[in-house]
Amino acid sequence: MDTDYDSHRENVAGRANVETTPELRAYYEELAGAEAGALWTVANKIEPWEPVSASVPVLWRYEALRDKVLKSLDLVTPEQAGRRVIYLSNPGRRDVVAAVGWLYSGLQVMRAGERASAHIHTASALRFIIEGEGAYTVVDGHKMTLGPNDFVLTPNGTWHEHAVAEEGTDCIWQDGLDIPLTNAMEANSYAVHEDLAQAVTYPVDDSSGVWAAPGLVPSGHTWNKGYSPLLKYEWEATYEALQRHAKVSDGSEFDGIMMTFVNPATGGHVMQTIGASMQMLRPGERTRAHRHTGSFLYHCAKGSGHSIINGKRFDWKEHDIFCVPSWAWHEHANASDTEDACLFCFNDLPVMEKLGYWREEAFGDNGGRQPVLG
Amino acid sequence: MDTDYDSHRENVAGRANVETTPELRAYYEELAGAEAGALWTVANKIEPWEPVSASVPVLWRYEALRDKVLKSLDLVTPEQAGRRVIYLSNPGRRDVVAAVGWLYSGLQVMRAGERASAHIHTASALRFIIEGEGAYTVVDGHKMTLGPNDFVLTPNGTWHEHAVAEEGTDCIWQDGLDIPLTNAMEANSYAVHEDLAQAVTYPVDDSSGVWAAPGLVPSGHTWNKGYSPLLKYEWEATYEALQRHAKVSDGSEFDGIMMTFVNPATGGHVMQTIGASMQMLRPGERTRAHRHTGSFLYHCAKGSGHSIINGKRFDWKEHDIFCVPSWAWHEHANASDTEDACLFCFNDLPVMEKLGYWREEAFGDNGGRQPVLG
Amino acid sequence: MDTDYDSHRENVAGRANVETTPELRAYYEELAGAEAGALWTVANKIEPWEPVSASVPVLWRYEALRDKVLKSLDLVTPEQAGRRVIYLSNPGRRDVVAAVGWLYSGLQVMRAGERASAHIHTASALRFIIEGEGAYTVVDGHKMTLGPNDFVLTPNGTWHEHAVAEEGTDCIWQDGLDIPLTNAMEANSYAVHEDLAQAVTYPVDDSSGVWAAPGLVPSGHTWNKGYSPLLKYEWEATYEALQRHAKVSDGSEFDGIMMTFVNPATGGHVMQTIGASMQMLRPGERTRAHRHTGSFLYHCAKGSGHSIINGKRFDWKEHDIFCVPSWAWHEHANASDTEDACLFCFNDLPVMEKLGYWREEAFGDNGGRQPVLG
Amino acid sequence: MDTDYDSHRENVAGRANVETTPELRAYYEELAGAEAGALWTVANKIEPWEPVSASVPVLWRYEALRDKVLKSLDLVTPEQAGRRVIYLSNPGRRDVVAAVGWLYSGLQVMRAGERASAHIHTASALRFIIEGEGAYTVVDGHKMTLGPNDFVLTPNGTWHEHAVAEEGTDCIWQDGLDIPLTNAMEANSYAVHEDLAQAVTYPVDDSSGVWAAPGLVPSGHTWNKGYSPLLKYEWEATYEALQRHAKVSDGSEFDGIMMTFVNPATGGHVMQTIGASMQMLRPGERTRAHRHTGSFLYHCAKGSGHSIINGKRFDWKEHDIFCVPSWAWHEHANASDTEDACLFCFNDLPVMEKLGYWREEAFGDNGGRQPVLG
Repeated sequence: MDTDYDSHRENVAGRANVETTPELRAYYEELAGAEAGALWTVANKIEPWEPVSASVPVLWRYEALRDKVLKSLDLVTPEQAGRRVIYLSNPGRRDVVAAVGWLYSGLQVMRAGERASAHIHTASALRFIIEGEGAYTVVDGHKMTLGPNDFVLTPNGTWHEHAVAEEGTDCIWQDGLDIPLTNAMEANSYAVHEDLAQAVTYPVDDSSGVWAAPGLVPSGHTWNKGYSPLLKYEWEATYEALQRHAKVSDGSEFDGIMMTFVNPATGGHVMQTIGASMQMLRPGERTRAHRHTGSFLYHCAKGSGHSIINGKRFDWKEHDIFCVPSWAWHEHANASDTEDACLFCFNDLPVMEKLGYWREEAFGDNGGRQPVLG
Repeated sequence: MDTDYDSHRENVAGRANVETTPELRAYYEELAGAEAGALWTVANKIEPWEPVSASVPVLWRYEALRDKVLKSLDLVTPEQAGRRVIYLSNPGRRDVVAAVGWLYSGLQVMRAGERASAHIHTASALRFIIEGEGAYTVVDGHKMTLGPNDFVLTPNGTWHEHAVAEEGTDCIWQDGLDIPLTNAMEANSYAVHEDLAQAVTYPVDDSSGVWAAPGLVPSGHTWNKGYSPLLKYEWEATYEALQRHAKVSDGSEFDGIMMTFVNPATGGHVMQTIGASMQMLRPGERTRAHRHTGSFLYHCAKGSGHSIINGKRFDWKEHDIFCVPSWAWHEHANASDTEDACLFCFNDLPVMEKLGYWREEAFGDNGGRQPVLG
Repeated sequence: MDTDYDSHRENVAGRANVETTPELRAYYEELAGAEAGALWTVANKIEPWEPVSASVPVLWRYEALRDKVLKSLDLVTPEQAGRRVIYLSNPGRRDVVAAVGWLYSGLQVMRAGERASAHIHTASALRFIIEGEGAYTVVDGHKMTLGPNDFVLTPNGTWHEHAVAEEGTDCIWQDGLDIPLTNAMEANSYAVHEDLAQAVTYPVDDSSGVWAAPGLVPSGHTWNKGYSPLLKYEWEATYEALQRHAKVSDGSEFDGIMMTFVNPATGGHVMQTIGASMQMLRPGERTRAHRHTGSFLYHCAKGSGHSIINGKRFDWKEHDIFCVPSWAWHEHANASDTEDACLFCFNDLPVMEKLGYWREEAFGDNGGRQPVLG
Repeated sequence: MDTDYDSHRENVAGRANVETTPELRAYYEELAGAEAGALWTVANKIEPWEPVSASVPVLWRYEALRDKVLKSLDLVTPEQAGRRVIYLSNPGRRDVVAAVGWLYSGLQVMRAGERASAHIHTASALRFIIEGEGAYTVVDGHKMTLGPNDFVLTPNGTWHEHAVAEEGTDCIWQDGLDIPLTNAMEANSYAVHEDLAQAVTYPVDDSSGVWAAPGLVPSGHTWNKGYSPLLKYEWEATYEALQRHAKVSDGSEFDGIMMTFVNPATGGHVMQTIGASMQMLRPGERTRAHRHTGSFLYHCAKGSGHSIINGKRFDWKEHDIFCVPSWAWHEHANASDTEDACLFCFNDLPVMEKLGYWREEAFGDNGGRQPVLG
């Protein structure tokens, strides 16, 4: 508990500005003994003028992490470790094991023929494939085969497991979860499947066959769960969608050509707590800066470029990962004048929107571009 | 007004069964003079035991209609006729100019280089292309190019116009509207564009470029109108979706592989009063019979087959049109053992669903197949 | 079928204006033989410039109907007639037995101790009590006791029955149903309870006890049916609500102080096809005219006044009933400078809203007041 | 950061169980240098078997707090302190200034004639009156007068201010906010009104006059904000609703007669992040135990009794406050056999529901009653 009672004083009308006297200090101590406190000692801290993020911008280079990830293959077995995952640790969020805000992320590696034990949890998850062949995921009896830049959902309350086919290769992917949020909301739970594996009870990739159609859904469906019945989003179709979009639209001044992955049964976010998008920066494109609430973790799916986040430049190329914390100014630039660059992103937008927390602001000065620090 | 007061009597407990006496007849006439009547003289008529349709099943052969449609090219000019359309007239619905239930349909023909005057109405419309090259439609500044088996929306409250490009050919298409419903609901209105034409203010086919992606919508969109922002549904993508669906699903016992066209922003019907679907009967497939509320107009988009509707067989092939009235038993069969057959359908399902009028029943006898009459 | 092919011609750009020649007449007859027709012969009729209603404004005086209603007590038994009801017959809607648009209404009378047979239908119904003591209604096991100006729902798909307690008096009430709409939509169905009566399985008036609270619903409820769980709306609470409303608001220039009865679980209309409201005209109040789509049937619950509908004045007092057809100009006036006047209304607003058919227009001239004809 | 890498090991199939070797320790340190870590060192901690709450059950006795609250009147001025509030501090949540979970609460006192400065923030708030006369709150121009056990909303994004009329008395009330949640979600913001006060632009208590009616809303309203247009919920009407409810229902075995305060325009929670309810324990009533996710803060509005929370008994009487943390077993008992007891509660149920985090479980043993610990 904060005992420097004067540390948050502000000399502004309507804000707390109480000088601690010996009498008041005695009073504060008396209150503490009654599981209470004086609001004016903390009011300015807990009612900030604008959103404050505990996270800091970080860029994780894939070339730096890849070796470390592969090293885990020799250091631990799946049986010992459960899963061989190197998690991303934001210096401002080490206490909650988050990459940014309340979002967890890690890089997982699996050998051909390995299969992780099936489990279920309240946290929502997605898996974005980086490299390797033969990866697949099973969700409630649906098996999805996965290639690079595909991503798959393993939503809150589903039995799921990841694996690599015998005939595949070592596979590396990025996991994204809301574990920190689910824990913070004091709602997480976990169970291991009694057989450690579940049966595949539908044709392989049936979710894509039935639900991945433009403007079409299966007639008479009764899907009403909190997540998308389309469980896999394939890179090829996504990239094609971005290109078609770019031919007929200028896109966003802040984000270029950007599309959100949705639940085709509702048009809403893919899961209740995690949203995802893919955006394309056209050759030579440089966007304007804005800031908004919510936590965002980007993965460069194609090409190279840089982002300026709160005045600091982060250069990225394929499979690098970086984060934009809540309310941080950010803008993006493609490094190439001839090739496009694509950024996959997952975030907590559904939470911001549903709870009424979404706020957005354009960077007005300097033509919408931040001055770059040092 | 009905003056045979005994014609609806039923000798069933809980139903009206009043014999008209001279005294009662005098009473009925007195009531009529006060803009009133005795419910028991009509109660059994207006409270039927099960849904009653005024429409009859009809099949319109394209080969029979095509010549008549083309003949209109020489008989009337667009300036005189507004549009050269041969409407489909259900014998049970001639009073409201409906093909079935409260749905209007017609075959329209237009020469290369012609452009109909732009207008707006409360009725909702769609246009399903049958033959010809160069057809296009403009809706609120969006121009959609159209090929065979494509269909396009011109929703309630939008400025729209149909045309054929100079370099095109004579084009024939099917119009589908809820004009009879909009009139019955006493809500229709109509205006002609002051310039008789509107400007194209977006890139050609931008609606498809932005919205026709599987499981993806433009980020940050704010679409909240009553109809789909995706205004055109292309045959090629639709047929591919059916084939992908068929690989992973057995489909419906009543309808084979069937998909509903949806508003990608909501997952709901394409317009507020009209739904649309495409279904595929696999080689050799024959479905089981059911009946349900709502009015359905089918168009054979590919292949050939037959449908049994209320015990009567209707054989159809490419571009034939037939209707299934509300509560009529119906089942479908593909005529080929090697080729698939596809049926486009538009209907009033959104109305049935929103008003709580949807009811469905399987044909239980005879393995789900109707005996064929005569 | 219309054979005067020239009757709808209009000499306006964008409208059909084809003179019938012998050649065309032959063509039209050929089309008729193929269950088809030429759109341009009917286009201007089915695409009117603005909403057209088949109904005419009518006022039914209670003092004129009351004797006729009571007379039915002696003329028919409940066993013969099912229910002793005098229905209201709009001269423009006699074919569908409607009071206005697609809404049915009638005055029903029942002796103390009588109980109508329990039944179920797809049509939605409400019952507005006019006079008498001891009336009650049972809906799916919930018994509601009813007094003057109370109204009760018997929604689509519920088992229901009306009755008067042994210790009651002769009761008269107004029934309101969407029977014409349900029939038009070809969705109606009907069944008589196998025991001709149902058991009361909940405490009397439990629906009001649980759901009729301001801004409060039972915790953890799971109500998700298409109609309100609050089945009875009591006059006393409604009138008090209007008075409280009037103290803090000027109300609507078109309707005075007007409140809509809602489903407390959703804030939406009480049933899927029928809306209801109560409005209060303050002493001396005279509203401005507007017109809108939808069909409205008013019942004077208190006081007296007049309405001007499409330029014709209709004077009403307690228990008089009158209708405002779709798109008819209308304005209301309280006859008293000291007492308020209240109008109960039921209508098809839910249909207009859900189907995208709602349109509204203020009467701009003459300070918003219509000139009164003849 | 946790450096005792073995502290979360579990010897269970499917869970992490890696013994730290010198080689692994070196690896972990290498990872830490790259803003990364090995998931298996923390997996069992961040994926708990069932929900874990950081909060502990606490009961705050009003008689113990009241003097301390009143003492602040002499210790600080409103100008210095902003507001004279004693906040409730859960021993497990001192870092975020929460009473339970992510909910803040405090007791505020104000002298007659005082008026706090008007402000706006992203956090949502409510104010439950404990004692005194003349309290009022202004929200976006609407002034609400307040008496004991009334509560008022000051939602996210509204200008608001609390005051006591000149002719009133010292007033004490409980504030409830989601400040900790809004901060945790990194979305909070704050502004002081430029005039330090806002104008009252509507009739006093207009929100109640218009919206506090049973099953009635103002016709034609267009309310679509994230919170209730009914801003005040009065004790008298609430208590009457509970009594009416109790006459026709047995209520819940876990909560007695319990009603949720709702937005009358939607039937949903009063604000986007905070729900509220009032429950009544009938004379002699003792409920069964259950546990569920979400954080709940109770205020005894009437009577006395006790609650058993995670096996510990807490006795409460009027104006005592206590909390039930997420997933804590809890059951309630009325101390009186002749009087009812009422508990007001606010909570984060909207968050649990919207994010898919709601889980509930009945205490199955011992007839649903927890054994009480030492």
